[in-house]
Amino acid sequence: MSNSDKKEDAQVIFNISKEKNFPDWYGEICRVAELADIRYGVKGFTPFPPWSYMTMDIMFNVLETVLKRKRHLPMLFPTVIPESNLMKEAQHVEGFSPQVFWIKEIGDGEKLEEPLALRPTSETAIYPMYSLWIRSWRDMPLKRYQRCSIFRSEVKSTRPFLRGREFLWIESHNVFATHDEAIAQVMEDIEITKDVVMGDYGVPVLIFKRTQWDKFPGGLNTYAADTMMPDGKVIQLPSTHDLGDNFARAFDVKFLNEQNETVYAWQTCYGPAVSRIFGAMISIHGDDKGLRLPFKLSPYQVVIVPILKDKDADDVLKYCRKIESTLNKAGFRVHLDDCDATPGWKYNYWEMKGVPLRIEAGPRDIKKNTAVVFRRDTMKRATVDLKELKKRVASLGVDIDQTLRSQAETKLEDLVVDAEREGEIADILEKRKIARTPFCTTEMEGLACAEELKDRVGGEIRGTRMDIEEVPEGICPFCGKVAKEIVYIARSY
Amino acid sequence: MSNSDKKEDAQVIFNISKEKNFPDWYGEICRVAELADIRYGVKGFTPFPPWSYMTMDIMFNVLETVLKRKRHLPMLFPTVIPESNLMKEAQHVEGFSPQVFWIKEIGDGEKLEEPLALRPTSETAIYPMYSLWIRSWRDMPLKRYQRCSIFRSEVKSTRPFLRGREFLWIESHNVFATHDEAIAQVMEDIEITKDVVMGDYGVPVLIFKRTQWDKFPGGLNTYAADTMMPDGKVIQLPSTHDLGDNFARAFDVKFLNEQNETVYAWQTCYGPAVSRIFGAMISIHGDDKGLRLPFKLSPYQVVIVPILKDKDADDVLKYCRKIESTLNKAGFRVHLDDCDATPGWKYNYWEMKGVPLRIEAGPRDIKKNTAVVFRRDTMKRATVDLKELKKRVASLGVDIDQTLRSQAETKLEDLVVDAEREGEIADILEKRKIARTPFCTTEMEGLACAEELKDRVGGEIRGTRMDIEEVPEGICPFCGKVAKEIVYIARSY
Repeated sequence: MSNSDKKEDAQVIFNISKEKNFPDWYGEICRVAELADIRYGVKGFTPFPPWSYMTMDIMFNVLETVLKRKRHLPMLFPTVIPESNLMKEAQHVEGFSPQVFWIKEIGDGEKLEEPLALRPTSETAIYPMYSLWIRSWRDMPLKRYQRCSIFRSEVKSTRPFLRGREFLWIESHNVFATHDEAIAQVMEDIEITKDVVMGDYGVPVLIFKRTQWDKFPGGLNTYAADTMMPDGKVIQLPSTHDLGDNFARAFDVKFLNEQNETVYAWQTCYGPAVSRIFGAMISIHGDDKGLRLPFKLSPYQVVIVPILKDKDADDVLKYCRKIESTLNKAGFRVHLDDCDATPGWKYNYWEMKGVPLRIEAGPRDIKKNTAVVFRRDTMKRATVDLKELKKRVASLGVDIDQTLRSQAETKLEDLVVDAEREGEIADILEKRKIARTPFCTTEMEGLACAEELKDRVGGEIRGTRMDIEEVPEGICPFCGKVAKEIVYIARSY
Repeated sequence: MSNSDKKEDAQVIFNISKEKNFPDWYGEICRVAELADIRYGVKGFTPFPPWSYMTMDIMFNVLETVLKRKRHLPMLFPTVIPESNLMKEAQHVEGFSPQVFWIKEIGDGEKLEEPLALRPTSETAIYPMYSLWIRSWRDMPLKRYQRCSIFRSEVKSTRPFLRGREFLWIESHNVFATHDEAIAQVMEDIEITKDVVMGDYGVPVLIFKRTQWDKFPGGLNTYAADTMMPDGKVIQLPSTHDLGDNFARAFDVKFLNEQNETVYAWQTCYGPAVSRIFGAMISIHGDDKGLRLPFKLSPYQVVIVPILKDKDADDVLKYCRKIESTLNKAGFRVHLDDCDATPGWKYNYWEMKGVPLRIEAGPRDIKKNTAVVFRRDTMKRATVDLKELKKRVASLGVDIDQTLRSQAETKLEDLVVDAEREGEIADILEKRKIARTPFCTTEMEGLACAEELKDRVGGEIRGTRMDIEEVPEGICPFCGKVAKEIVYIARSY
């Protein structure tokens, strides 16, 4: 976004093999495209400059529009949670307490009466209030969400967006009069993930019911979407949790039902971590020349580069401004790059930044009333009549998003490989793929086999598929019992 | 927003005199209209339910649209600031350190290497990064802002929105190559305040240059907007600061100028606290029956109440849905209240919530193809032909906002009263008004007089007007010297 020293700055020609050297690719693109600055000086906390923040903001807006359409309303709870709230649900506190940032002091040494946690997730902030807000069956369904920062002290090495100590998410917290309605909400959350993450963001996912030993602390069941990163590790994108009435019992969320009896409510929560999805999205769509942002998500959908020759400079700029204004009025996000760098420099810069469409216009275009349109995904140019430009930008935008999406989907599909024996699983993981395997059970009894797998092969059971039906066949490669399930095994973040 | 027990819940008929008993009015409207829940259990931290959050979200969007038009770009910095950053500017740390929430511990007792502050404002987070981002004059003007939570441990008693320990704001941080450009930015910020706070929010303000003893810690000059609350105390709404090159020197924000010399940059910052402006906005526009939200800001601009008679119920609902869909498509935020409460209950409920327009439609309206439109500001009804409805809603919306704005402006203008002697000032403040007084000087030498005023009268000097020109005349009522300035004196939050 900065025009400083453009001509001198050679770094703008990005060229790193994403497949061969993903960690370098990722670190460099975060730096050069100004997505995150790791020099802030606090482990796991990074400033997000405009290019990443604006993209995430659009991602949030797309997701919030869908949530609102499904009758969720936004709200905002405090960033801090009193210690006593966190302590109310035993499994939950056990799951999160090692990761909590604590505030115990204000000003010059004054002690707080009660320590405050920076929210690692907000169940324990919100549910005591739900206990006051919900009195009768008429108050439900209560569907609320908030967009906020979340704080977890990750012990592993951190990486911008993918594993930070502060990340940005939406958390939706819902209350129902019956367990059936809660389960229906979980299914709706899965549909939202499909529509938004796979559809709008173009990030393909496999949707799993997690194993009993890998669910949300304190909940009944967790359903989560995984995608595969270029380094062959899967990463969890949104997860949704059927909390049963466990949290209602811990936080006293009760109501009078239609029969006038006081009963506990049923709860669900859904947590799309948009900053993490952003990290996955740029990794999956990017190529060796830098970012490739979806048309729907890019802060600038179109960048206009005037081809200025001294004698025609004014006319060309005027012509470009006309194009800018036409596209702006049509609702596109357009940026006219009129800084003093060369067109070649600008091409490289905006290709690295991932802007999906570039329009080039010079003296010859004025004569013919045309412009050259370049698409970042295929790196192809075409000359377009100005009268057609608006329509063409719109249709190219749709096409770019479809192309990015289907390239990513094909890649993910090819990564799933059937395996029946431990050796096969090991081979598949070694090849940075996902093993599809018969398995004894994802109930707690299966944990021993999962631990054997982890010790000997290093992989992790991601769960059973929710988005397709699968019939178990064969035996568990670890205990030899008849397989009750088909599970997916991968290395993970 | 909840439909629970509507028929039983008599509290929906709000009736408290705002002028006679503002603290009660404010506390009760926050509770009954579900704006903030003070039962969260941590002093100064309150959840914001949908009705207040959605309104503030719209307020943010209006403001951000203007900032973006003025070429500010959004970004986001971490919520935490390392202690050593805070310490770099001596006056700044002195100004803020008593209010800082400190994180020194994570998990089960692990000490952090360096304490982290929850940001009380972000200069000390952002400027060390600006020091790395800015190298040449070509990098400027650098105009960036973030929307975030801010944390200050207020010692006084807290009140939702008006004085909390966590509040929501936008902070804009800008860097320029010259002091003149920085000053021009401060003037632009003042224009934004006028356009957005006075224009879009309808909250009238007086714009002051603050005295030298009341400026932003570490800055050169502070310019701030004040409005008057119904209890006769003024409250600071946005402030903008000319930081000079003080922070650039402390945080090493240097650049190569066009003459190839390394020099310090000039900085400004601007901090509209939207949650606080929300508190002022509802206080100023509200009346004894509850909220009166501007059409531009209300989460629901129009609520539709069907007048259902058993035999025509289906037809009426269908008719109302048609109205809903027509207005929705026209871009209005519409809510059809089809819950099972009586029309009278719904009228009271949505009047208390401040929805600017209500549409009532029953069997008689179907026959005549009309609807009844009620406006909350004047409490007046009119029958409108359905063909005219879209146009009428749009024009009533504009009219409501103008009415609220001009009512508030007239009230504020009437509150400013000239005074020349201490006794007059005391009388004016006693009457909950603002005294306009000749004063020796707002440079540091005037502090003694300001302290005398505070001790004896209890008022505070808000500064000299920036939005109008005023010629000083007369003598300072405290030291008797020739007045160099006209100042405004009021009791304040």
